[in-house]
Amino acid sequence: MSKPLILITNDDGITSSGIQKLVDLMTQLGEVVVVAPNSPQSGMGHAITVGDTLRITRNDIFGDIVAYDCSGTPADCVKLAKHHVLKDRKIDLVVSGINHGSNTSISVLYSGTMSAAIEAAIEDTPAIGFSLCDYNTEAEMLHVDESILKIAKQVLDKGLPRGIAINVNIPPKQNEPIKGIKVCRQANARWEEDFDQRVDPHGRKYFWMVGNFVNHDKGEDNDEWAIANNYVSVVPCQFDLTAYFAMNTLNEDWDI
Amino acid sequence: MSKPLILITNDDGITSSGIQKLVDLMTQLGEVVVVAPNSPQSGMGHAITVGDTLRITRNDIFGDIVAYDCSGTPADCVKLAKHHVLKDRKIDLVVSGINHGSNTSISVLYSGTMSAAIEAAIEDTPAIGFSLCDYNTEAEMLHVDESILKIAKQVLDKGLPRGIAINVNIPPKQNEPIKGIKVCRQANARWEEDFDQRVDPHGRKYFWMVGNFVNHDKGEDNDEWAIANNYVSVVPCQFDLTAYFAMNTLNEDWDI
Repeated sequence: MSKPLILITNDDGITSSGIQKLVDLMTQLGEVVVVAPNSPQSGMGHAITVGDTLRITRNDIFGDIVAYDCSGTPADCVKLAKHHVLKDRKIDLVVSGINHGSNTSISVLYSGTMSAAIEAAIEDTPAIGFSLCDYNTEAEMLHVDESILKIAKQVLDKGLPRGIAINVNIPPKQNEPIKGIKVCRQANARWEEDFDQRVDPHGRKYFWMVGNFVNHDKGEDNDEWAIANNYVSVVPCQFDLTAYFAMNTLNEDWDI
Repeated sequence: MSKPLILITNDDGITSSGIQKLVDLMTQLGEVVVVAPNSPQSGMGHAITVGDTLRITRNDIFGDIVAYDCSGTPADCVKLAKHHVLKDRKIDLVVSGINHGSNTSISVLYSGTMSAAIEAAIEDTPAIGFSLCDYNTEAEMLHVDESILKIAKQVLDKGLPRGIAINVNIPPKQNEPIKGIKVCRQANARWEEDFDQRVDPHGRKYFWMVGNFVNHDKGEDNDEWAIANNYVSVVPCQFDLTAYFAMNTLNEDWDI
């Protein structure tokens, strides 16, 4: 039986240590091809490149592994891989990450890592976004192997419901081993922004956005709770944003 | 009674004719403040500016209306308006657009227009994204007034369910008047990309992304159907991406 074809991408760029880790792990499960941004794309959300050109270049950073860097966003990388680089082949799994930093809760919306996975789901390809909840780019990554391999194997063996990509967050390294893997919902938490105002050497004002993460969710079935309790969280995500319950509300309340 | 405070933003940039139209209409309903990108941001999805500085500048393009242009994305504009420009005031409504081009179906994910509205919803502010399903930036806009005023008034009067932003698409100008306003779900359609490969004057390859919109949805309760039948579509959108039905599937199927 031929090995499954696994496409790897990320949003921290092709030189990040997170993607190197995914390459090392996924080569244990299948044939790996990498198409990843040539520069960091954090916070890019589901951006795509529509008003500008795109370039991709063969990159030998991973030795024998076929890899390309791309001038576009994570979602662009998936589109280019699917419709150009691997045009005549079936991709069995797309994995994105490992993101350096959490993509739990509302962060999924801003996440380039997850936008690549959701882009794959739109195209009916099973996909996983992996994030390590540690913003230190030199963070210890030895504790992630077991969960990542276990989850990727499940998805390769059993597939995913149509139109679903999964958002996997892994707790930072702690003294005790990870407690397990929990299927969760997205926590009801958000970023409350502050703007740090400064003055540049030319006397003009500018701002840095400073986010404070605030968790309003008291439940124990959500991704924030899982991470806080040393579990890996798995949230199945969909790209149909329709709030079905609200259709009734509008139809009843509105006078149109 | 004081007039409602309405924040206007968009993704085509502060000089587009769509935002000028919204300013003209919203001044009939309340006090308007504009914070909009200083350059086009189409396809930016829910991108935010995390690794770079942000600037905002007072802009007199709308005469007496208080307006600022911003170096960031549509989502950045909403954050800056809420937490800096209008820090001590309550925003009653955020309107984004009018986008030049459709944001029906899956396009909502890539839409800077809707990311601004969803950002407002995350912050508990009622919000509407307006798009005209005509890619011609000089497109006729006289037929949009009635629907936009009607919908904005409904939202100002009755609010929206918590955490919901609405995605409004308006059909292009036709010989008959618009037939009405329909509350819809997001159609199950998608972009199938092709990459137009070219060679630059220096002999290097580059690509333009060329999207073909393919509608697989045979229903009559979705936004694509509404637009094709000369109705304005209204889709309530949520930012919780959890696919709740799939949580059961994973819990049952997976061996973790």
